[in-house]
Amino acid sequence: MTRYKLKIEYDGTGIHGWQRQKNDLTLQEIFEDSLYKLTNEKIEVVASGRTDAGVHAFGQVVHFDLNKDWDEFKILTGLNHHLIRKSISVLSSKKVSDDFHSRFSAKKRYYRYIILNRKSPSPLYRGRAWHVVNKLDTKKMRDAAKYLIGTHDFSSFRASECQSKNPIKTLESIDITEKGDQIIFDISAISFLHHQCRNMVGTLKEVGEGKIHPEDISAIIESKSRSEAGVTAPAHGLYFMKVEY
Amino acid sequence: MTRYKLKIEYDGTGIHGWQRQKNDLTLQEIFEDSLYKLTNEKIEVVASGRTDAGVHAFGQVVHFDLNKDWDEFKILTGLNHHLIRKSISVLSSKKVSDDFHSRFSAKKRYYRYIILNRKSPSPLYRGRAWHVVNKLDTKKMRDAAKYLIGTHDFSSFRASECQSKNPIKTLESIDITEKGDQIIFDISAISFLHHQCRNMVGTLKEVGEGKIHPEDISAIIESKSRSEAGVTAPAHGLYFMKVEY
Repeated sequence: MTRYKLKIEYDGTGIHGWQRQKNDLTLQEIFEDSLYKLTNEKIEVVASGRTDAGVHAFGQVVHFDLNKDWDEFKILTGLNHHLIRKSISVLSSKKVSDDFHSRFSAKKRYYRYIILNRKSPSPLYRGRAWHVVNKLDTKKMRDAAKYLIGTHDFSSFRASECQSKNPIKTLESIDITEKGDQIIFDISAISFLHHQCRNMVGTLKEVGEGKIHPEDISAIIESKSRSEAGVTAPAHGLYFMKVEY
Repeated sequence: MTRYKLKIEYDGTGIHGWQRQKNDLTLQEIFEDSLYKLTNEKIEVVASGRTDAGVHAFGQVVHFDLNKDWDEFKILTGLNHHLIRKSISVLSSKKVSDDFHSRFSAKKRYYRYIILNRKSPSPLYRGRAWHVVNKLDTKKMRDAAKYLIGTHDFSSFRASECQSKNPIKTLESIDITEKGDQIIFDISAISFLHHQCRNMVGTLKEVGEGKIHPEDISAIIESKSRSEAGVTAPAHGLYFMKVEY
């Protein structure tokens, strides 16, 4: 048995997220089907983190075990052959020791969120960014983001379906940069609660609109109440960028 | 009669270019249909330059005349309402004098071409960049690009269908920058021959592969022969960025 660690990119548009589902097409199903076509082994692939329907990835990491020993480069080219015209591409492939686990060995995760902040919609960013018409004040958003950094009970930014036992997480960074009409959020942490990135961005967007004051973020965190924070930013603006091990 | 100048963005994927055609859906048809729905006037819209099937635009400029006098902001919002979920968006709208012409008044045009230079395909850049697997030498490409700058007979980079009377054009700049896996070409000129950008990029790609030497570009220009230059880069890596008047 050999364990493989793969970095993959995907376009989440029109697909029901990572996690295999009974009736809807998911990225896990597309990936496992291609792996079966290549290796003739029916295998469960484990991702470093599940992503919601519509979320994209430039650097998701998965692992799986094969009975037959494959050259790691053949895994990459063989899978990409079966993934042609599909939503996933394999970027790198590496044999790893049996104690590597894409999810549990992860030391840090990086997400990016893109807001397109302008009046007109964008056909080129459709499904790739959150179109926000109201002009956002990024200085206020940066001020507010500082309150989120560090170790907190993030219950106010947690989806009701979240399965994590512990709502306490340590947020490493939220960098907010502007590039033309785009506002780009680069967010990193060891791990996140379900919808945490999207709920933080949705709240920061309301700060940028003047609906929430930056200094109110402390009280929102302390309330441990989802209803005190802002909206959930849509999935299609979110990109899973990188995992560090 | 009032003349309007509009800046538009479009995603050229799956559409047969700008210019209206009998049997295939084009951007001009989509745009003119929306204009008719808004104004009830059947009008021909003139673009600063036609774009091929698959080419995108962040800043195409069009003009048209309306019998009824419309508020310029209503033109923008009204058209975008009719263009919802379509491939075009209006970015700005302005009344201009009758002597303005989107094509003939243009002083400079800016194109961008994106090559994705890596082994694995990219679902997120599919239809948005030319995927080139062979590692390209961008230093050589920059050296080669210098020979293209200035006033030349560009017949070697001209499509056989080109309708321009004069193959002599002045190329202002080709800046080649790297950004991660991307090689980005920013190209500007007063005007271009048909396929000139794509033929120049295709030739520079062959320079990057070592098939053509940078100093051979002079001889390729002097040959005035399309067959001496490199391949035509695919349309979907090309973006019409900006027009200056």
